[in-house]
Amino acid sequence: MAISIERERFVETMREQAEIGATEGGGLHRLALSDEDKAIRDWFAEQLAALDLSIRIDEFGNMFGRRDGTDPDADPVLVGSHLDSQPYGGIYDGALGVVAPLELLRTLEDEGIETRRPIEIVNWTNEEGSRFQPAMQGSGVWTNELDLETQYERTDEDGNSVREELERIGYLGDVPAEPRDYEAYFELHIEQGPYLELEGVDVGVVTGVVGFYWGATTFTGEADHSGPTPMHDRSDALVAAADVITGIRRIPGSLGDRTVGTVGYLDVDPNSINIIPGEVTFTWGFRDPSDEIVDEAKARALAEIEAAAEREGVEWEVEKRMRSASVDFADRCIDAVQTSADDLGYDSMQLYSGAGHDAAHLSKVTDTSMVFAVSENGKSHSEEEFTSWDDCYAAANTLANAVVRVAGLEE
Amino acid sequence: MAISIERERFVETMREQAEIGATEGGGLHRLALSDEDKAIRDWFAEQLAALDLSIRIDEFGNMFGRRDGTDPDADPVLVGSHLDSQPYGGIYDGALGVVAPLELLRTLEDEGIETRRPIEIVNWTNEEGSRFQPAMQGSGVWTNELDLETQYERTDEDGNSVREELERIGYLGDVPAEPRDYEAYFELHIEQGPYLELEGVDVGVVTGVVGFYWGATTFTGEADHSGPTPMHDRSDALVAAADVITGIRRIPGSLGDRTVGTVGYLDVDPNSINIIPGEVTFTWGFRDPSDEIVDEAKARALAEIEAAAEREGVEWEVEKRMRSASVDFADRCIDAVQTSADDLGYDSMQLYSGAGHDAAHLSKVTDTSMVFAVSENGKSHSEEEFTSWDDCYAAANTLANAVVRVAGLEE
Repeated sequence: MAISIERERFVETMREQAEIGATEGGGLHRLALSDEDKAIRDWFAEQLAALDLSIRIDEFGNMFGRRDGTDPDADPVLVGSHLDSQPYGGIYDGALGVVAPLELLRTLEDEGIETRRPIEIVNWTNEEGSRFQPAMQGSGVWTNELDLETQYERTDEDGNSVREELERIGYLGDVPAEPRDYEAYFELHIEQGPYLELEGVDVGVVTGVVGFYWGATTFTGEADHSGPTPMHDRSDALVAAADVITGIRRIPGSLGDRTVGTVGYLDVDPNSINIIPGEVTFTWGFRDPSDEIVDEAKARALAEIEAAAEREGVEWEVEKRMRSASVDFADRCIDAVQTSADDLGYDSMQLYSGAGHDAAHLSKVTDTSMVFAVSENGKSHSEEEFTSWDDCYAAANTLANAVVRVAGLEE
Repeated sequence: MAISIERERFVETMREQAEIGATEGGGLHRLALSDEDKAIRDWFAEQLAALDLSIRIDEFGNMFGRRDGTDPDADPVLVGSHLDSQPYGGIYDGALGVVAPLELLRTLEDEGIETRRPIEIVNWTNEEGSRFQPAMQGSGVWTNELDLETQYERTDEDGNSVREELERIGYLGDVPAEPRDYEAYFELHIEQGPYLELEGVDVGVVTGVVGFYWGATTFTGEADHSGPTPMHDRSDALVAAADVITGIRRIPGSLGDRTVGTVGYLDVDPNSINIIPGEVTFTWGFRDPSDEIVDEAKARALAEIEAAAEREGVEWEVEKRMRSASVDFADRCIDAVQTSADDLGYDSMQLYSGAGHDAAHLSKVTDTSMVFAVSENGKSHSEEEFTSWDDCYAAANTLANAVVRVAGLEE
């Protein structure tokens, strides 16, 4: 028996959540632990209460709602995502993965369907990492990948700490933020990339998350007057950085068809039209499903950095920002998603996630897989982010059936 | 008869001026129209008054002191530079060119020497252009190269206008800021480049100022998530900018041995480790004694910009920031400086100035030349700026004798 969530109400719920923190440009500005985050959390708690779920808030603000199963000894299936957004982000990123299981639980309730295992829905704290770093903070703490006390002390630009803000908005719970026994974890998210749309499929079956390396490099040269300093007498930190940026653009093409490399952040000092840049700091990173390729890309970048520094006569320094090994999801969970998509008649493809997700942390403590919804033009982290209601619905139903498949229907 | 300024007092006066706005690092922080600028102006006016000079403050704050000559109909010789500094700049840039003629006038007074022509000393308002743009503002207004009312309205970062600040510090004078008849203008400045030191000479005879072009380019691509967006699907504005920076590093070497090209300012949006740069704005510029070479360099840069935009699939926009034709100083003034250096027994070389100076504006209204003092390592606009007292003194005496040569000694 396939579960079919109620489409009209599902769309209505997506629209409802999108009103909290709505931007004029049709997106969301709902930063972690802000007043808007408090409002969406309150809304979420109301929806859980209306379903008579038992609610837990843990000491890192992660919110859980539990619907009991018929077998009191069975480990639950966990499903969810996050309700915070990027600054002026889209209405789907995160929220779709919370609304879909909420609608699943409503459908089960409406139709009087019981599952053998309990189903728990979760809203993870601060997935986006834009107000407080790092991203995936709540699930990271919960899975013991990140240290609770350290993460409590992380501050935003204004010096407010995570702990203070959790307290201020009333979501500093008392349940320990630590793993429990779960049968599986499922998460629905928009793809944030173009592959599903390019392949023309309805839904994505996610087999893992790419590994990545992030570093930061500082070049220190000489900040001289740009007029009288001859070219041969310069140590221009920005020229050295430009060399490396060009190299990082080139490296992925010689490694793998899923390798990506990016310089996203760059800061110039003194940054004056008339002064040769004396110091430049920039971040760089690579991702690939293969950790060997990530390591090779990193090694090639370091070679570029050394060569550029040598050519331009600047000092260099590299700081490791993050290394995350690639994640392979559990076959049985991937199969549950794949079978659900097939049974529902959706065209699908299996793919790695290029972005990090809470599911990557969860996979360390329980069997995990994800469902991806089509992202128009692969756009996300922007008000232009768009997924059609057809695609949202296909992904939501795929998720619902994968969850129920593992939770076990009692008929 | 060679004039010889009093060395000990000259050094003492250099040290005295350096106390006003002194930084802990041994430099100067004496931004145009700041309280420190008011203090050094008050100090300067006192020194002029002590010499019984007649003082004029014009409506743009330029300060003139006049020592009469014996011929009431003769046009005066003008000599000076600026007393404002860069943020945390050095103690020589500008000030040396005001202290040297002040010491010349003291020496003439002490020794009862009269000149046929009057000698006028000047302190130009806001040469540095760091608090209020553009640089060389006072001399630009005075020579009608810049419009008075427009420049009055220029504001600093806090929104204070030039006019308000001139009024606040008491230097909004009532003499029109417009050219008068002068026989010649001389200016002493540190070289701010390495050529004199490299050649091992005592003093530089400046034959002109290089021409330059400054532009700003904006590339607009797509700010996508750096993880899931494949390399072939990116329009990375920073990669395009890096291409151009590399090109601008390369262009001068194929043009002339005095050609320089620089990207000094670069701004990335959104500038996040995890987002492909969507928009990058950067400035670029070229200088050369030959205007044809500057134009050719600019044309090659535009070709690089178009090609980079095409390769990366980004939109581009170029804004002209400034074009300044190269300046050739007057042979008779160059000769006056050269003969003075020779007569004093200083090793010298003739060179173009790579930096702009008030003298470039002055050359539009009167015959002009400059004296350059050696800059250790070519460093300036920094607390590390250094010129030995020997080199300061050699340049000051060269200036003094060039001025007196044109003013005409009455013996």
